[in-house]
Amino acid sequence: MALPTRVKIVEVGPRDGLQNEATTIPTDVKLTLIDMLGEAGLHTIEATAFVSPKWVPQMADHADVMRGLKRRPHVAYPALVPNMKGFEAALEAGCEEIAIFTAASESFCQKNINCSIDESFERFAPVVDAALEKNIKVRGYVSCVLGCPYEGDIKPAAVAEVAQRLHQIGCYEVSLGDTIGVGTPIAAKKMVEAVARLVPLKQLAAHFHDTYGQAMANLFAVMELGIATIDSSVGGLGGCPYAKGASGNVATEDVVYMLQGMGRETGVNLNKLIDASAYINSYLRRTPNSKVANALLAKRG
Amino acid sequence: MALPTRVKIVEVGPRDGLQNEATTIPTDVKLTLIDMLGEAGLHTIEATAFVSPKWVPQMADHADVMRGLKRRPHVAYPALVPNMKGFEAALEAGCEEIAIFTAASESFCQKNINCSIDESFERFAPVVDAALEKNIKVRGYVSCVLGCPYEGDIKPAAVAEVAQRLHQIGCYEVSLGDTIGVGTPIAAKKMVEAVARLVPLKQLAAHFHDTYGQAMANLFAVMELGIATIDSSVGGLGGCPYAKGASGNVATEDVVYMLQGMGRETGVNLNKLIDASAYINSYLRRTPNSKVANALLAKRG
Repeated sequence: MALPTRVKIVEVGPRDGLQNEATTIPTDVKLTLIDMLGEAGLHTIEATAFVSPKWVPQMADHADVMRGLKRRPHVAYPALVPNMKGFEAALEAGCEEIAIFTAASESFCQKNINCSIDESFERFAPVVDAALEKNIKVRGYVSCVLGCPYEGDIKPAAVAEVAQRLHQIGCYEVSLGDTIGVGTPIAAKKMVEAVARLVPLKQLAAHFHDTYGQAMANLFAVMELGIATIDSSVGGLGGCPYAKGASGNVATEDVVYMLQGMGRETGVNLNKLIDASAYINSYLRRTPNSKVANALLAKRG
Repeated sequence: MALPTRVKIVEVGPRDGLQNEATTIPTDVKLTLIDMLGEAGLHTIEATAFVSPKWVPQMADHADVMRGLKRRPHVAYPALVPNMKGFEAALEAGCEEIAIFTAASESFCQKNINCSIDESFERFAPVVDAALEKNIKVRGYVSCVLGCPYEGDIKPAAVAEVAQRLHQIGCYEVSLGDTIGVGTPIAAKKMVEAVARLVPLKQLAAHFHDTYGQAMANLFAVMELGIATIDSSVGGLGGCPYAKGASGNVATEDVVYMLQGMGRETGVNLNKLIDASAYINSYLRRTPNSKVANALLAKRG
């Protein structure tokens, strides 16, 4: 039950966060944000999504973002890719790591990406094959691991099965998403325990939303099981599309604060991270959805 | 390491929360809030503070609040009492339970209540004696158990010593306050472990602020040690006086959501609690400082 000594943070703000914004964010603002996040010491920054602009207009500039990156050594800039067309566009733009996504809930999969879970695997199987052939790393996302807006509770075994399939087809890491933030610590632990029976713990990531204020407790709980990779979003970017006005992603600042307070290595400079949070939130004309950012920015005056 | 099956929530919103408000809140608004909290199933509701109106103007109506309570069976309405004068006024107003307070940090004690920790004990020793003689229960608060705005880190042994003194003079419960919300889970556990060596665990309460977003994780961590009493504030009422714009008390709604999600008994009806939160936040013309309240109110539409 020892907490991991090092924790890898996967920063998802520029993609998972910004994709939910109503206003179009200029490419140079995104690139500046990504650069500031790299400067803060984040080593994995999800940069964009090669999805249809009809589906996610906020990511229409994916190729410009990918091409415009001021790449830093030892920093990965994965992009979300839904199908072969997206993969080819990502590849052409110089993408070196991709992420694919499915769900642990059939209803959510249908409503979110318009296919069954099985069909989602059929759809991205050629993508994964093509990527691995070109030595491009593939990360897998599973949505609704602690609950579904349509089905309610999701069985840990269902999550484990989908996670295992992602692992078996070649994903180097499987990110377990509490998409609607309904999980609580015991449920989070049970889910991770079930998944860890089929996929090695160090290849799992916790991607917990804070819609009901549970993300930090849930993260601590699964770190107690050995989870050492956490997805989070600078400034808590990305609201919850299932409850307007509610929170989505847990804030990177709050996660880093907890990890530093517990003496865990993250490689992140909290002050520089706050700079990045202040930058994007100033652009968006709002206060960060991060308690740490607000407390520390209040102290800066 | 089993979590407690039942958790007692001490609702501190009407006192610890409202005392930090800038605008004067009418007595009848406070009484309505307290009544709604009782209706929601909270069994301990800190109602007011018999402190000088010069010191805390928001609590100037303490006697009216205490006399105006629509008392429910099996609900306690403790009041904060700093000295003999306050105790006598509380008694006269019909108060049946009091709370006294000191700190684990000498500097904080000096700046907050203008005396040393030893002097604080001298000051409330006669209060405790008089209360116990009249069968009035006394609760003790310790501030700064995980950090002090003036001294920084606070040693667990220093917290344990002060907690033990409160227990020894007759406090039936000692509430351990992370006044500035700087604690993280491992530190919270170490502190509770140190205190529990000197004071029985079931006589300890966790009173954690969410200034840096750590309260929920810290609460889960200390529940793993057996802590079964949690102080919280409806709607997260009560900002942080040490960082303007930052959060203070953890929100009761978020705590109840976690406990219910983990199958722990609290006796609280979450929907009615949201009603109470909506009521006071509507009066204050702002959104609750509770993720659960915001998510559920958004769903109500």
